[in-house]
Amino acid sequence: MEKKQTKTRTGNQRSANRNASTRLHAKKTVGGAPQSTRAGQKKSSNKSRNTRNRRGHFGQPRPHAKKKDDVIPRLEDDVIRIIPLGGVEEIGRNMTAIELNNDIIIVDCGFMFQEDDTPGVDYILPNTQYLEERKEKIKAIVITHGHLDHIGGIPYVADRIGNPPIYTRRLTGVMIKKRQEEFPHLPALDIREVETTETINIGALKLRFYNVTHTIPDSMGVIVKTPFGGITVTGDIKLSHDGTGVVDQAEIDSFSIFKDEDIICMLMDSTNTERPGWSIPEHKVFDTFEIILREAKHRLIVGTFASQLERVIKIIEIAERYGKKIVIEGRSMKGNLEIAKELGLVKPQKGTLITAEQMSDYPESKIVILATGAQGDTYAALMRMANKTHRFITLTKDDTLVLSSSVIPGNERAVQSLKDKIARQGPHIVTYQTSDVHASGHGNAEEAKWIHKQINPKFFIPQHGYHYMLRSHGDLIKESCGLTSDDIVIPDNGTIVEIREKGQKLVRLPVKAPMTTRIVEGLHVRDIQEAVIKDRQALAQDGIFVVVITMNLRTGKLRKSPDIISRGFIYLRESQELLGETRLIIKKTVEDTFKKSSKPEIDDVKNELIDVIAHFLLQKTHKNPIVIPVIVGV
Amino acid sequence: MEKKQTKTRTGNQRSANRNASTRLHAKKTVGGAPQSTRAGQKKSSNKSRNTRNRRGHFGQPRPHAKKKDDVIPRLEDDVIRIIPLGGVEEIGRNMTAIELNNDIIIVDCGFMFQEDDTPGVDYILPNTQYLEERKEKIKAIVITHGHLDHIGGIPYVADRIGNPPIYTRRLTGVMIKKRQEEFPHLPALDIREVETTETINIGALKLRFYNVTHTIPDSMGVIVKTPFGGITVTGDIKLSHDGTGVVDQAEIDSFSIFKDEDIICMLMDSTNTERPGWSIPEHKVFDTFEIILREAKHRLIVGTFASQLERVIKIIEIAERYGKKIVIEGRSMKGNLEIAKELGLVKPQKGTLITAEQMSDYPESKIVILATGAQGDTYAALMRMANKTHRFITLTKDDTLVLSSSVIPGNERAVQSLKDKIARQGPHIVTYQTSDVHASGHGNAEEAKWIHKQINPKFFIPQHGYHYMLRSHGDLIKESCGLTSDDIVIPDNGTIVEIREKGQKLVRLPVKAPMTTRIVEGLHVRDIQEAVIKDRQALAQDGIFVVVITMNLRTGKLRKSPDIISRGFIYLRESQELLGETRLIIKKTVEDTFKKSSKPEIDDVKNELIDVIAHFLLQKTHKNPIVIPVIVGV
Repeated sequence: MEKKQTKTRTGNQRSANRNASTRLHAKKTVGGAPQSTRAGQKKSSNKSRNTRNRRGHFGQPRPHAKKKDDVIPRLEDDVIRIIPLGGVEEIGRNMTAIELNNDIIIVDCGFMFQEDDTPGVDYILPNTQYLEERKEKIKAIVITHGHLDHIGGIPYVADRIGNPPIYTRRLTGVMIKKRQEEFPHLPALDIREVETTETINIGALKLRFYNVTHTIPDSMGVIVKTPFGGITVTGDIKLSHDGTGVVDQAEIDSFSIFKDEDIICMLMDSTNTERPGWSIPEHKVFDTFEIILREAKHRLIVGTFASQLERVIKIIEIAERYGKKIVIEGRSMKGNLEIAKELGLVKPQKGTLITAEQMSDYPESKIVILATGAQGDTYAALMRMANKTHRFITLTKDDTLVLSSSVIPGNERAVQSLKDKIARQGPHIVTYQTSDVHASGHGNAEEAKWIHKQINPKFFIPQHGYHYMLRSHGDLIKESCGLTSDDIVIPDNGTIVEIREKGQKLVRLPVKAPMTTRIVEGLHVRDIQEAVIKDRQALAQDGIFVVVITMNLRTGKLRKSPDIISRGFIYLRESQELLGETRLIIKKTVEDTFKKSSKPEIDDVKNELIDVIAHFLLQKTHKNPIVIPVIVGV
Repeated sequence: MEKKQTKTRTGNQRSANRNASTRLHAKKTVGGAPQSTRAGQKKSSNKSRNTRNRRGHFGQPRPHAKKKDDVIPRLEDDVIRIIPLGGVEEIGRNMTAIELNNDIIIVDCGFMFQEDDTPGVDYILPNTQYLEERKEKIKAIVITHGHLDHIGGIPYVADRIGNPPIYTRRLTGVMIKKRQEEFPHLPALDIREVETTETINIGALKLRFYNVTHTIPDSMGVIVKTPFGGITVTGDIKLSHDGTGVVDQAEIDSFSIFKDEDIICMLMDSTNTERPGWSIPEHKVFDTFEIILREAKHRLIVGTFASQLERVIKIIEIAERYGKKIVIEGRSMKGNLEIAKELGLVKPQKGTLITAEQMSDYPESKIVILATGAQGDTYAALMRMANKTHRFITLTKDDTLVLSSSVIPGNERAVQSLKDKIARQGPHIVTYQTSDVHASGHGNAEEAKWIHKQINPKFFIPQHGYHYMLRSHGDLIKESCGLTSDDIVIPDNGTIVEIREKGQKLVRLPVKAPMTTRIVEGLHVRDIQEAVIKDRQALAQDGIFVVVITMNLRTGKLRKSPDIISRGFIYLRESQELLGETRLIIKKTVEDTFKKSSKPEIDDVKNELIDVIAHFLLQKTHKNPIVIPVIVGV
């Protein structure tokens, strides 16, 4: 983010940083053949010029001429391959492939939302090229739970990898199916409901499932059973405990299956394992809501994630006990609740759920509004209330507003803005910072240790987090669970881990599975195009400056004053003098080029124009727009 | 941020949101007269089209035709006016004006760094139009301490308001002066050093200063003494205490001056007052560093802010006690330390400070590196180490790296990336989350209450924070210090507060001082141009699509296939088919327009082209680039 750069530079550093720097673009348009963004680029003669440092690295597609080291070796017989294809350099787009002989089992298929360094991108997917090239071996996708970082990729990925059957529990299956309905052009999915008591045969492998605690019902972990032992992926996980670390009996029961299992390798959620101690158990949050709902003398508005379905269900149950009415605001929450009702996960009495229009029929003390948008999402219900654009709900100073969520990194400013806008309208605001109205769905260090000891794997691969989180998790396990560095791989996306010698040896291959960033943008799924992203970043900072020159290509005489089209650079209406000077410079540059050579190459004229114009604008404004000359010959 | 929007929309919602929406731009370029960005805009005939919702509101300049309500009334005699011109809707750009009869005293003159919703902007300043219009009354700028959110605006503002004398303490004065040297074209500042024992006469007013605890030496508060009592601005403030809330004697001594002062109104730092209890006192951090430095068996790298000068000084002192050598990395930290040495605030022995090149002369256990960049700043020393681009410092797994800072909202992803990159190179990382290696410079709720009771003001105005923080602070004071809503104003930037009836009555005027956002961008200080910012946001998302059409203006015949120039939209090289179709559509649209009318207005042709092209591209790509047709008549 440019923001961070500016934090340490003053006015003069700025000019020093960018001293005569210019972004160079030449574009052949005479003849009408459009070229790619970087085509025709020419290095400036001024050696000190440098293109601006821009954040963000994207792997570049290398369609041809793979180096020998890049070739992924053939999978040897009886070697288990584990490849995290996403979710180990970020929180999001979780996907892991487990491969043995003729079978590939995929666990999860998530996406993530765009980051600041990928403007204009909608979603980021795991790169599935490795799988696409081995389609016929894929026997199953196992989905651990119904959050978008675990199911979001399915509509974009399933078809490409041959639409393998999807094994998951009931709620997750329905959520996947409902979501797929938004993509009517895609073939129907083959979703197969499983239960945690089951063991099923898939190819030469077996799958066994176990219940895990997260924030949405029907969360599970999976064991891929091989002849050499099991590989388990826990999925997102925390523990239900009494608040001091005494783990509930239900957890002990769930993990008891590992008494019969010989686990070679565990992949486990690292999101919060750098936090010491135990997480706040969700029932503490329920207790807090019990008090808040019981004591509310006026309207209560609870902002949370639609994905926090267990909490949404619980709040409805509590509200009902106190004779309160529930208004659900937000499309995703309504949708999820609809599914939960269908499946009998919540059974509100008739009349408990009312619409916002019906609120006026009841006293304020009986109203609980459950709304999406606690992350400051622009269009969500809470922000509409904050912006006073909600059709039926006007906030008042009697309202209490509970933000039942933490702040996702990157959303801090949006949440601050939400709180500011709400505060201006008067409600009392309760947040997780001063009250137990939110608990994370991911376990802390002590939970990681407890789970590790139950599963007792020979090898360990942390997942679901940024690299530092994974490494912290790895360090924790080394310190507390007797594993050594040789027993642990801290993977990157695409890292190929092999377990050889009948489950005895853990090897990290030097080569990775293809890892170019795969994105969804508009209608397309494609590898990220670094040039386009860099242009967007540059356009966002300094804009574009297009010059259309109508001239006699033989004499170099301009037919008329050049046309200038600019966006995002400066306010042209206030910059007539600058534009006038720029026109003179353009004219002179073209004529000089023709003086030097009687028949100059049109590209040379353009490159010269780019250099001269960019340099002049930088000098005059300290801004560095993309400069594009268009020469129309007449 | 677009990011938040996408969080709740799926592929199909996207198309629904933007159903045939298009951004409309028409640009008159025939004749070469450039128009402003919004000139020539035409509403599409398709009523359902809407321009995309974009975040961010910027006040628009209203140069003419002020409504009567907007006129700021003349200041009545003996009425004290207090106007926060910045820093009360954000953390940053602090500036407050205090006006009585013929005198204006300004307290602080900060800037803030750009936000995500103002791409391409360098800094955001307080709007000083109110002051510019009353230049002759301005008698002093008082600067409370040397942080950029209190001094950063000086080079951009001082000259515009007549270069009034700047009153501040020694260190702050030197920092302001050094910074001004980077702006050699500006007149010298009139900086007048004051001490906290002093009371000075300014116009008909008196200024009295008092010591406050923050994170940089020479922090102070000020009392503007009027005939009706004092107005005090505390500046950034916390308390030095024993960790349990027993306040140090030095604080009690500093605040003892208020025994003789009758304070009408206090303006106080609200940054952390929503946090319950007491802040971690800085000496706890010093104690932690004492242990870390004493026990370090290998190299220690401490990342912190250059502005945390007290901590930097303390770490040097501790290092010296253990015979360690200090390497300073980072321009701003070197600069600040140089000033501190000049002023005798730190007196390192000869040989304690070494350069990075000299490190190899000493055992690793003797090396402490103090580096800037703990916020993940792109070019700072720590990020260079993390990126392996630092000339002299290569991280190893033996190193311990202490991030002695919290994470500024908005920087979370950058700090995560810093930690990930460092973790990949092996060092052990210590953060404030697991160890007391950082304390905020702003006091918590109990400190706010303690300070309030010492100063005992009749009226109260919270400042230095977002609206919600100010409101929390106001609520706290109402609950605990006996003030009522009538005694408190929660201001916005530009809110005019008057104290009338000889200090007896607090009034908030319905009119505000001009509050258009004032920015620094490149070489210019100007009001923000909403159109330009919106264009940048649009360009960052969907790019630009310029079409150059060479045609016979009489017949409507195209001379050749249209030229297409595009940036940030899609990768043109892979989109030949789309471009081909677009060219056909352009040709057909132009010809059809000429068929309908024998002599169509050129602007009508363009508007028709914009509609047709934008609609076509949206349909084909779900992207919505800015479309600009250029018609060259031949």
